[in-house]
This record gives sequence, structure tokens and C-alpha cells, in this order.
Amino acid sequence: MNSVRPKKVRLGMVGGGEGAFIGGIHRLAAQMDGKIELVCGAFSSNPEKAKAFGKTLFLSDERCYASYEEMFAREARLDRAERMELVAIVTPNHLHFPVAKLALEYGFHVISDKPATLTLDQAIELKSIIEKTGLLYGLTHTYTGYPMIKEARHRLKQGQLGQIKKIIVEYPQGWLASKDDENSKQASWRLDPNKAGISCCMADIGIHAANLAEYVTGLKITSLCAELTINVENRLLDDDGTVMLRFDSGAHGILLASQVCVGEENSLKLRVYGEHASIEWSQLEPNSLWLKFSDQASQLIRTGVGQMAEETLACMRTPAGHPEGYLEAFANIYLQFAKQIRQHHDDNTVANSTNAKDNVNASCGIPGIDEAIRGMAFIENVVAASQSEFKWHNFSLNPADIKPRTINEITRDNKEANDE
Amino acid sequence: MNSVRPKKVRLGMVGGGEGAFIGGIHRLAAQMDGKIELVCGAFSSNPEKAKAFGKTLFLSDERCYASYEEMFAREARLDRAERMELVAIVTPNHLHFPVAKLALEYGFHVISDKPATLTLDQAIELKSIIEKTGLLYGLTHTYTGYPMIKEARHRLKQGQLGQIKKIIVEYPQGWLASKDDENSKQASWRLDPNKAGISCCMADIGIHAANLAEYVTGLKITSLCAELTINVENRLLDDDGTVMLRFDSGAHGILLASQVCVGEENSLKLRVYGEHASIEWSQLEPNSLWLKFSDQASQLIRTGVGQMAEETLACMRTPAGHPEGYLEAFANIYLQFAKQIRQHHDDNTVANSTNAKDNVNASCGIPGIDEAIRGMAFIENVVAASQSEFKWHNFSLNPADIKPRTINEITRDNKEANDE
Amino acid sequence: MNSVRPKKVRLGMVGGGEGAFIGGIHRLAAQMDGKIELVCGAFSSNPEKAKAFGKTLFLSDERCYASYEEMFAREARLDRAERMELVAIVTPNHLHFPVAKLALEYGFHVISDKPATLTLDQAIELKSIIEKTGLLYGLTHTYTGYPMIKEARHRLKQGQLGQIKKIIVEYPQGWLASKDDENSKQASWRLDPNKAGISCCMADIGIHAANLAEYVTGLKITSLCAELTINVENRLLDDDGTVMLRFDSGAHGILLASQVCVGEENSLKLRVYGEHASIEWSQLEPNSLWLKFSDQASQLIRTGVGQMAEETLACMRTPAGHPEGYLEAFANIYLQFAKQIRQHHDDNTVANSTNAKDNVNASCGIPGIDEAIRGMAFIENVVAASQSEFKWHNFSLNPADIKPRTINEITRDNKEANDE
Amino acid sequence: MNSVRPKKVRLGMVGGGEGAFIGGIHRLAAQMDGKIELVCGAFSSNPEKAKAFGKTLFLSDERCYASYEEMFAREARLDRAERMELVAIVTPNHLHFPVAKLALEYGFHVISDKPATLTLDQAIELKSIIEKTGLLYGLTHTYTGYPMIKEARHRLKQGQLGQIKKIIVEYPQGWLASKDDENSKQASWRLDPNKAGISCCMADIGIHAANLAEYVTGLKITSLCAELTINVENRLLDDDGTVMLRFDSGAHGILLASQVCVGEENSLKLRVYGEHASIEWSQLEPNSLWLKFSDQASQLIRTGVGQMAEETLACMRTPAGHPEGYLEAFANIYLQFAKQIRQHHDDNTVANSTNAKDNVNASCGIPGIDEAIRGMAFIENVVAASQSEFKWHNFSLNPADIKPRTINEITRDNKEANDE
Repeated sequence: MNSVRPKKVRLGMVGGGEGAFIGGIHRLAAQMDGKIELVCGAFSSNPEKAKAFGKTLFLSDERCYASYEEMFAREARLDRAERMELVAIVTPNHLHFPVAKLALEYGFHVISDKPATLTLDQAIELKSIIEKTGLLYGLTHTYTGYPMIKEARHRLKQGQLGQIKKIIVEYPQGWLASKDDENSKQASWRLDPNKAGISCCMADIGIHAANLAEYVTGLKITSLCAELTINVENRLLDDDGTVMLRFDSGAHGILLASQVCVGEENSLKLRVYGEHASIEWSQLEPNSLWLKFSDQASQLIRTGVGQMAEETLACMRTPAGHPEGYLEAFANIYLQFAKQIRQHHDDNTVANSTNAKDNVNASCGIPGIDEAIRGMAFIENVVAASQSEFKWHNFSLNPADIKPRTINEITRDNKEANDE
Repeated sequence: MNSVRPKKVRLGMVGGGEGAFIGGIHRLAAQMDGKIELVCGAFSSNPEKAKAFGKTLFLSDERCYASYEEMFAREARLDRAERMELVAIVTPNHLHFPVAKLALEYGFHVISDKPATLTLDQAIELKSIIEKTGLLYGLTHTYTGYPMIKEARHRLKQGQLGQIKKIIVEYPQGWLASKDDENSKQASWRLDPNKAGISCCMADIGIHAANLAEYVTGLKITSLCAELTINVENRLLDDDGTVMLRFDSGAHGILLASQVCVGEENSLKLRVYGEHASIEWSQLEPNSLWLKFSDQASQLIRTGVGQMAEETLACMRTPAGHPEGYLEAFANIYLQFAKQIRQHHDDNTVANSTNAKDNVNASCGIPGIDEAIRGMAFIENVVAASQSEFKWHNFSLNPADIKPRTINEITRDNKEANDE
Repeated sequence: MNSVRPKKVRLGMVGGGEGAFIGGIHRLAAQMDGKIELVCGAFSSNPEKAKAFGKTLFLSDERCYASYEEMFAREARLDRAERMELVAIVTPNHLHFPVAKLALEYGFHVISDKPATLTLDQAIELKSIIEKTGLLYGLTHTYTGYPMIKEARHRLKQGQLGQIKKIIVEYPQGWLASKDDENSKQASWRLDPNKAGISCCMADIGIHAANLAEYVTGLKITSLCAELTINVENRLLDDDGTVMLRFDSGAHGILLASQVCVGEENSLKLRVYGEHASIEWSQLEPNSLWLKFSDQASQLIRTGVGQMAEETLACMRTPAGHPEGYLEAFANIYLQFAKQIRQHHDDNTVANSTNAKDNVNASCGIPGIDEAIRGMAFIENVVAASQSEFKWHNFSLNPADIKPRTINEITRDNKEANDE
Repeated sequence: MNSVRPKKVRLGMVGGGEGAFIGGIHRLAAQMDGKIELVCGAFSSNPEKAKAFGKTLFLSDERCYASYEEMFAREARLDRAERMELVAIVTPNHLHFPVAKLALEYGFHVISDKPATLTLDQAIELKSIIEKTGLLYGLTHTYTGYPMIKEARHRLKQGQLGQIKKIIVEYPQGWLASKDDENSKQASWRLDPNKAGISCCMADIGIHAANLAEYVTGLKITSLCAELTINVENRLLDDDGTVMLRFDSGAHGILLASQVCVGEENSLKLRVYGEHASIEWSQLEPNSLWLKFSDQASQLIRTGVGQMAEETLACMRTPAGHPEGYLEAFANIYLQFAKQIRQHHDDNTVANSTNAKDNVNASCGIPGIDEAIRGMAFIENVVAASQSEFKWHNFSLNPADIKPRTINEITRDNKEANDE
């Protein structure tokens, strides 16, 4: 064994200060397993607020920065054994790309909230930067971190369902159902095209649903028919949408996402129907996975009961009947990314060839830059398809083919409408 | 009160002999409440079989007919106090119209399984016959007979949800998922265009889902985008489909129906999202109705617990906690139709103006000829929309506007394909 | 085949007039399958009310009697082909025995609501009358009529659970939780020792729970420890109780029954734990049966999905996914009893030896006089055990051994308490 | 505000090395919120193993001790700013008391797994040590840390249920159902009287159930009737038990706990029935709390939906629909204990008077030494009651009154049995 004492992965955070939602989640997820330690942050552009907030996290004042540029520049000058290794990006969407780009250029690994960027163009550019720097990039598609999602993916890979016929993925929420819901910090930037991009609902949750469908089945969307709707007056971006899907294997599917389904919490649900069997999984009861057959008793597979796949076991911390949840799923993403980082530092040549981009194919990998690109393409293809009078639209990864309405067009149209 | 002793409604049945599924259901539903008595039937075209089957139902040989034509002719000649009053039509689809037409022409009321006819044209013709004869016509959209569906409809009418935004209705089944499933009596005629019409899945179950969405919300579909698929080799008709919907109020929705979702039983489920609240109902647990709100505890309304609407109470036979199911829902349709028939006979002038066609607006009414027409229009519009390359298709009640592929075209295309 | 045309079983009813609950249930259950026809009744001691009520059931005035004595005497004089064959007893408990006794003496078969009698003594006497007359006697332990109960029983008989270790049966209701609940017709007689006997809760629902536990497992209670409680002021009889159980195989168990569990509907639930597997069934979702294992996925067995036992299939009317409920379970009791009656008449020698008392051991049998005796013994043993300061009480079938507080003692004690 | 920079609470752990279950859980729970840092441990009596294990936790070799005595002695000599402040005891039961005693004597706060000690005598002695030292003592009754348990407790305190009538708490598990299950590290010490004490099932899980019932309702058990069973050959200790309960308010209840219920995971479930309403909570779906009424729709209260009590909010980390689970419940215990420790150090006078023993009465308190004593008394009273031939046994906190079979008697009886 290595004689060098192992050290925790040192994490810096951009965003996630007072009042933010996802920043706190990232911190909990990162530190739960004791493999990662938060060492610095750029939580606020106000230096006093940044320090005050950092103090609540037991950070020293010196490592609470007022901007990410400052953080990267100063951390880069610290001793290698002390300085930050990994940047977590938990800002609104429009900052994901510039922060990731600069972090990589300074030599830091990046873990980013989704969507990876504001546009597909940026995601493609980000990939070339990652390839150039040889650094690691992870995307927090949280729901891929659930043990029962790993188990589902494993069983589909094994062929337990036979050929896949139909995929139904739905993601209804109700938190943006009314005008009054727009006042929260969370709501305001998600509904602002300059911060969120060309979509609200699809960029916020539709993208998770599409990722989950592809992640579990291993299939790729090849064409789609979409209808996005806006259900509250004066909104510029979609708060609801339906997408019919066709996959590369010939399977077909439906994706529903909505933020105006009053009474729904965070009801992501996936059903996959194959020739011989089907699976059903709901995020609200994440430790249950249904396996159903054409004419025999259904099976309720529960985390920790019976034989589980290797990758499922790697995502469990408790024995059967001790429910794990959303934070543990999130922590699994961080845990696996921390392992990759340690492996990367131990053996750089291996690391270069096992970049996070390949991870989806690895047993316990986490989504990386290729999922980032597919996610941005999903948003742009869906928006373009929704604008079309034709039913079917080819899913393209080339921005030049897609041409959805741009942010400028959305805001310009809105200004004109208001001027009239 | 009338000094004449009340009598049970006398029912004759066309179809529903040995091995049939829905005929037995109709009989159970009709006789459960003791208001209707089966007096005759045309169960089989083989006179011996007809009589043998009738014997198991305690019918005399004389009233077990070998054809519906014979039955109508012979029953019409019986004494008014003895002869059949009502005909239940439980044959494959292609016979619904000719049997209903002849029954009405002989002066019998009709209760028919859905879809009402083979084509929209026939449904329109049927309406004119009903209007001419002044007789009653009921359509067994069973799911409208559940107490909790009545309660849901009542609460929506009261405005408990506010303006309706979105409707999701799904109806997945798995019984036609494979080639092997085609051998049953039930499967074979449903997949034969000459007996089923231009659709299998939509005509068999999509039509129930569409009816339920309109029944509960009181809204009408105005346009749709549809994609029907065939998932087993050599099938001529759809076994699965997705339909995006727009309603007359501006609400939007999704309808999913499938017969190839392995592991699903008969999972009709309706969700309606309004401004203030939403409802959810699932046929598999029919005595539960969820009422959900944007930020307060959800309510689980259970049959018989708490205050129920008049029309809900009229559909209940047991106190809370004694589950009623599908047969009772079906029996509610028969029970209410039997009441209409007695009312019709008691007071013919009233009856003429309260034909079943108006029933959906009545507190406890059952679907009638107008629902029959909308159902046939639904099938034809969906098939036409599915064939179109354009996304949206106007929902029309005029056959000349719709022009889906005809039965002849389907079978001709198939013959040509097989000849090559 | 027999050249004699089969006829429906002719049923007369004692009790169950205006405002009664269980009478209507019996009628629905009896007539649902079309094998039994109601021909007469003693619904009310007021002759006008009896006739008016009978008219709503399409009975002729002549066969609506003002007393059961009159009914038996007059029906016995009718032509054999017309007269009642079977008496359904749906009165309060205190009449069960005298009505059954007289019916049998007149030569009628009897189907009775539970508890069979007011005392164990009476039940034992009833058995000797049944044996003397050679007539059939059925007891409507409704819950034994559910398909999934038949399936559970079958699987236990097959040994799928291994040796049974523990049985938990619970039956919480909330309908008698407060003083105000005592005003209903249902409540008042159940709380009156003269009409209900020495127990309310145990005689009304505890008895069902005990019967179900024995029915499904085939085991017999041999000793018990009981604690009955009264939770509303001035009640004379238990409205709640807990019973620890030991069975003849060495298995142990717990029985909970309560009428004061506010918010519970009719939540009968049975769990049986064996060496290798366990089952769970809940009356509120009666079409589901859980089969659980020590370390593999649980199985959800659903009515009509996969291979079912013969006796399960015999209790189903609809395909999978079309929920059947309480009335169908009840109807299964009637249906099987009707078959026994026809078999009895066809072949009297067989009938005498296959009296209903043996039915529990037959594949689809219904509870009979032996279950009646065990039920009455259960009530008396539980009441005696509850009065004891010792923990364990031997379950005895001999009234002389048990000696619980008598009805006279209960009412006398109460009078004395009130006099003070 | 204090100008001194806040620091994390420094934790040392006794037990919880390679292969242990609960030690890892404690570490996850402690570090999730970033308020506590693990600084040392006595994970193994083998010094090499202790260091190797500590390395995986990023501990320096110097702070990985081979015994708890060494750890306390050495840590006590470290600088006040660096040394351990809090000891987590995660050993088998027999070490809980000696470790806690010594830790307190060295001046360390203690957080201990349950049961607090091996005997009630020890628990009483422990209390006097705590009072003498003025230090804090917390007991990890994990299930009290769930948000919906806080909410339930709050609502009962508010009187939403009215007077409590009946409590049903059940805790079935299946992991010790067979002989083969005894080989695991977890099983072997729990079934050994020298390590586990006089009870297996009641000391391991029954104690949680009893604590939860008292915690949520605020009532105290005053007498009980118990029956413990052993379901696998050659076991010395109970693996299953039923306890009937009476509470100080006059309420009655039932507690079921079992480790031989094959197919059950960790199914702790609490139901409390009051005059006006009832609650139901199940650990397997911990984010749901049912509130049911006598005749109105049931309410499903979900973590984060609608108005929550202060103490509920203090136990939540995520918005509605992002399930939190067992680890978060556990982390809530640690989080609140860490706050108490900081408060204790900030203001020693306050701390002395707000010792953990009072916490159960505080809004967000965690169980302390008084719960420890009640827990040990529960075990001893239940064992004594189970041995009694009388039904009811007074619940006593005085060891001299209880006199259950001792560990020595159990092992001696066993030796004798084996010698024969």
C-alpha cells in the first residue's frame, strides 16, 4: 500500500449562500460520507456576507471569497496539499458555463448542477476544454444516484425486460402553479430567460426526466414531438410540457414535466415496459422498485432485500428497512466523483482515459460532459419541436440544425408585447 | 301512489354466450340490485347452444333465440306484460349498430356496450333513430358508475379545483403484449378491423379514458395530436397510443392508452389539476379519491366517509370500509337506466324530453347517444391525427371532415402487403 | 343430463327491513349471481310495513309476513315447487337461535348472520337440531368469501410458508368511538346485552377475526389471554379488546379488535408468519395478497394475475384489474351454499354426509355449524379470560368450563350501579 | 456576537470498527450537517487494526486507540482546543455502561446507543454520575429524530386528537427468523445474555417502540401484561414479544415486537387513537403522517407540505418531495446534541440546569438519561411480567420491585439444560 496518508478531497463552492436551496444540498451530500471537506467558497458577491456565511460553515475568513474569479486565482496560489481540488457550481444556470470554464482553466475539477450550460453551443465548447485539460467533470443528475435506479439499470442491461417497447417518464411538480409562487428566490431566476435560458420547466426538471430515461434504459432519444405550455399570465418561459419520444432501438415513449400540477411534490416516476416484464420506480418512495410480469405475481424489490447488483450495493449505507433518500442519492454522486478524483491523482494516465464522460458506461459512474451535451440538446430540441407545426422533430446534437427561439428573441418579443 | 304493482324491468340480451367476457358482467350488473330480470337472449347462432346456455341462466327454451332478429320478432308478439322491454347488446363492435337499430325499430329500449357503433356515420344515424322512436338508449361507460367518479365530478362542478389547467388520463393494460396473447376469443375480434373497426386500443379503452376525462370535468376536447403504434408483428390495428389534448376551456391534457404495457392490469387513472387543487383517482383502488392542494395536507376521500354528494350516495350500497368494485359500478349504470325506463313508461311525455342523451347533465345520468357520438368521433379523429404529419388536428363531429383510414383501406393494404 | 329444468334456489328472509344494514347486503349477495331468488320475507312485525317493504322488492303481498313463525307455517303449506327452501336470518343476535331452530324444524335450510346464537349453549343445541334434521346450515363469515383469502388458505395448505410461527389479525373500526355514535339502529342493539349477548366488539367483529385466522391457517386456538375494555361512559359491553393467542400447532398470535379506533373504516387485516415466508392481506384492498420472503423480493399476488388455486378461481367473476369487493365475497358464500342446496336435493344421501359442518375442509366450502360453535366459544372464552386475573385461559368448547359473566349478571350489575 | 470563531464539535468513537453496523451509521449521522468532526476512536482492541481502520476515516495514527481507557486518558491530556469533547458509544450493550461511566469521569459528554446499560441498576447509577459531573448525556432513540414524529408529537400536545384512548405500536423484523441468521456479527452478541442482557428482542427493538409511544403521546406506561417467546431452538433470549399496556392517563395500548416475522424489514409503526382523531406513522414511509377523523376525509401530512411545527422544521433539510430518511433522523439527534454542547460550553450555568435529561420536554430535545432509565425499566418489567402467571404487572422504576430472571440465571439454566 501507498505510504502516503490519504486525504479528503478539498472542495470549493461557487454560489449556494444564504437562502439558496441547492447549495446546502450539495454541502450535505458532499460531507455525509466524510470523504470530502469544504475548504473555501464564493458564496456571495458581498465580502461581508461571504465571510459571515462562511463562518457558519466553519471556514476561515481568508477562504471566503467575494467572487469565483478571486477564489480560483487565490486558491491556485496555495500549497498543493492545501488548496481546493474540486469546484462545485451551484449558481443559477447562466453562470454554470463561465464558472466551469474558468475553473478548468485554473486546473480544478468541476462538479456542476444541471443544466450544464445556458446553451448547447456552450456545452460543446465545455467538452473541448475538458478534453484539453484532462480534468474531471461531473453533472449532478441526482436521481441517477438512487440505489434502485442502479438496480433497475442493471436489470435492464441483463435483459430481464426483453426488448423495450415503451418508456413513460413523468415529473409533475406544483410549486410554480400560481402568480404568487413567483416571488421566491428559486422561482425568480428560473423564470428569467437571461438566467435560466430558453426554458424553465424543461431545463429544470424535464432534463432530469430525459436523463433518467436514457440512463436506465441505455437507449437514446432520436426524435420527438413536443408541446410546451405557459400556464400563468406574463410568463416568458414554459412551466409545463409534454414530449412524445422515439428511441434509437425503435422503442417509443412519453415524457411529462410540469411545475403547475397543484398538489404534486416532486413526483418523478419512471416506467419501462419490455417484451417480458416492466419496471416502475417513483422518487417519492425511492427504495422500492416494482418488477412486473405479464402473468405472474409482481415483485417488489426493496433496497437491501435479496441479491442486489454490485453498483446498487455501492450506493447503500443502511440495511433493509432503514430508508435512504434524496440526500444519500446526491451523496452517491459526490462519493463516486471523489473516488474518481483520487484515482485521477494516483494515476494520471488512467485518469485521462477514464474521464467522467465515460462514466455512464462504468458500473457506478456519474453523468459527465456527454450527458451535459445531451441535456442541453434535449432542451433546445424540445423548444424547437414545440414551436413547429409538424409533429415529429429529429433530435440533433448540432446546434445549427435545431434553431429554437433564442433568449434574445424571447426577451425582445416580450418587450414588444409590453410596449404595445 | 300508483295502485299497479311495480315489476322488474325485463331484459333480453344479444351476445354474451359461452366464453364471452362482457356478457356475464352485464348479467351480474343487471341483476345485482333486483330491479331487472333477464327474460330472454340470443346468445348463440346455434339453436342448441343457445338453449343449453339459456338453461344455465334459468331461461325457458322458448325464449332462447338463435338470432337477434328472431328474438325481436317473437318478443314483440308477446303480451305487453311479459315481453322484453330492454335489449342489452354485448356483441363484438360490428354488430352494435345493426342490433341497436333493429331493437329500436321494434320498440325496445337499448343498452349497449361501447363503442356504440363501427363508424361515426352509424352513431349519427343511430341518434336520428332514437329521436324518431322516443326510446331510451344507454351506453355502458362503466367507469362513470363509480361513486368516487360521481364525487369527483360533483366537486369539480362546485369549483373546488378552480379553473382546470391540465388533465392526465392514462389507461395501460398488458394483455395484448405478445403474439401469444392473440389467440383468445377477446383478442381475436378486437384485432380484426371487420369486427372492431379502424382501431383496437383506442376503440377498446382509449374511448373510456376520453369519456372519463370529459365526464368528470365537463370539458370537451377540441383538438388533439395523436400517435398510435403497433407493437406486435402483423397486427393491423393500434395496440397503443398517446394523445395530447386541448379542451374547450383552454385546458390541456394527455391521454395514454396501451394494451402492451406488460404487468399492468386495467390501470385506468385520472388526474385533474386546477388552479387551487387537484384530484387523482385510480380504478384499481376505486373507493379512494385524492384531493390535493398547493400547500396543505392532501385529503383522502373514501367512499362513505364524510359528507358525500347526492349522486355519490346514490351509487353506494355498503357503509365505509366495505369495498365496492367494478361490478357495482357497472350495476349503477343498469340501476339508473332501469329507473329511467320505469319513469319513461309511467310518463311518456316526460320521458321523451328526458332521453338518455341528456343524462350526462342530470345528477345521476348515464352516458347516452351523445356520448356514443363523441366516442366514435374520438376514435376517428385520433386515427386521422395519428396519420397526419402535422402536430395538431381539430376534433370534429362531422365524418366528412375527419377522413381517417377506412376499414377497407386497412384490410386492402394488408392484403397487398401479404401478396408481395 | 337431467331432464328436469333447474330452478333458482328460493329464499325467504327474516329481518332486514327498512333501515337495516345487513339485510340489504344479504339480498344483493344472494341475487347477484342469478342462482337464488327472494320469494318471501318477514321484514317487519307491522303487517303494513312488511307488505310495503316487500313491494319494493317485487314480492307479492301474500308472501310478506308479519312474523317468522307465520312465514314458516304458511310457506310449509305451499306447493313444494314454489315454497321457500332456504331462510336467511339477518336479525339482531338474540333472534338468530330461535329463528334458526324453528326454520330447521319446519324443514328449511338456514343461512345465518354471525354470531350464530346468543350463547354457546344455544350453538351446541343448534348443532344437534341440524344433525337431526339433516338440513344445511351456513354462517356468513363474509371475509372467508374473498378470492385472495381462498388463495392464502391454499398456499398455506401447500406449505409455502413452512411451519407457522405467528399470526397477527387485527380488526379496528371507529364507528362506536363516541356517545353520539350510539343512536343509530346498528349501534343500539349491539350495545344491548339482551340483544347482542355478553359482548359487543368481540361478538360483532372479533369473531370474524378469530374465524379468519383459523380459516386461513387451519390451526385452532387452544388458549388465550384477553383484555376487553369499554371506552365510552355507561356502556355495558366491550367496544375494544386485545387477545393473545396460542394455537394447537404451537404457533402464537395476537388478535386486536376495536370499535373505537377513530378514523378506521373496516380495517380487517391478517398477517401470518411462517418459517420461510409470510402473507399479508387487508380487507380494504382485498384483491391484493402479499407473499414475503426472508431475503428475496416480495410478491404481490393480485386476483386474476398468474396461476390461481381452483378455489380462488371459483370465487372470481372478472378478469384481473376489475376490482371485486365485499359484496362479491358475500355472494360467494351464497353461491356456494346454493350449490350445496341443489346437490343436497339431487342426492340426499350425499347431502347428509356432507353437511355444511364439514365445508371448511372442502375446497370451496363455507363456514357452518362447527364454525358457529367455535365462534360462540371464542366470545365466551374471551369474556371469561378478560375477567380473570391470570394471564392464560384454556380455550374450551364446553360451556360449563368457561363461565363468563352472563347477560343477567351484566344487566343486574348495571341496574345496581344505576340504583346507587 | 462572540468574537471567538465557532468550531465543530470534536467527536471520539468507542466501537464501530470493521464490520460493525451501527458505528458507520453514527459517523454518517454525526458528520452530515458539518457541525461535528470525528477526531479519534477506539475502534478495535488490535492496535494495527485500529490504525488501519482509522486511516480509512482520515484519522491520524496517534488518535486511533486500542482501548477506550487509553483514548480517554490520552485525549484528556491534549490541549483543550483540540481534544475530543464528546464520546459516541456504539459497542455491544454490555460495554455501554462502563464506557459511559469512564467517559463522564474524564469529563467528556456522552452520546450512547440504546439500551443505555445492561441493567436498570446501572442506568440509575449512570444518572447519579451525570448529575455529579454536570455533563451532557444523549441516547440515540433514532426514531424520535424523524420530522413527522416531531409533527405528530406537536399535534398531540396541541390536543388535535382529544383524549387519547388507544396506542398501537408494532415493530416487526424478520432478520432472526432462522438458525442460519445467527451467524452474523450483529446476531451473535444480541443473542448472548452476557453481551445483550436479559432480553434480545425487547432490548433491541421493543425498547424503541416503547420509547416512541411515550415520546409522541407524552404518556407513561404504568402497568403491562407481557408474553415473550423464543422461536428458534437453543436460543436463550426472546426473539419476539407482545405487551399489553396501560398508561398513566387511563389510555391502553399494545406493543408488538418481533425479530422472527419473515419478510418484514424494519417495520416500526405507530398508531394513536384519540377521542376526535387518530394518527398513523410508519418508519418505512417516514415522510408521511396520517391524520384521520371520525367522519371526514383523512389527511396525509407530508414533510414540507403545509404549515409545520417549529420542531418539525428544525428536523428538515430538503423541500417537500425530496425524501429524507433514517440517516437524517439520526443526524437530527446528533445535530441537536451538538447544539446543546455548544450552548453548554458557552454558558455553563444554563447547561447545568438544562441537562439532556430534560430534553424530552424541550421543543427539539433528544432522549437523555431519564429515557435511558425508563428504557431499562421497560426491559426488566417486560421480562418479569412475561415470567408471571398473573395478567397484569405494575411498571416500576425500582429494580428491587421488578426482579426478572437475571443474566446469571439465564446462563446457568442453559448450562444445566445442556449438561443433562
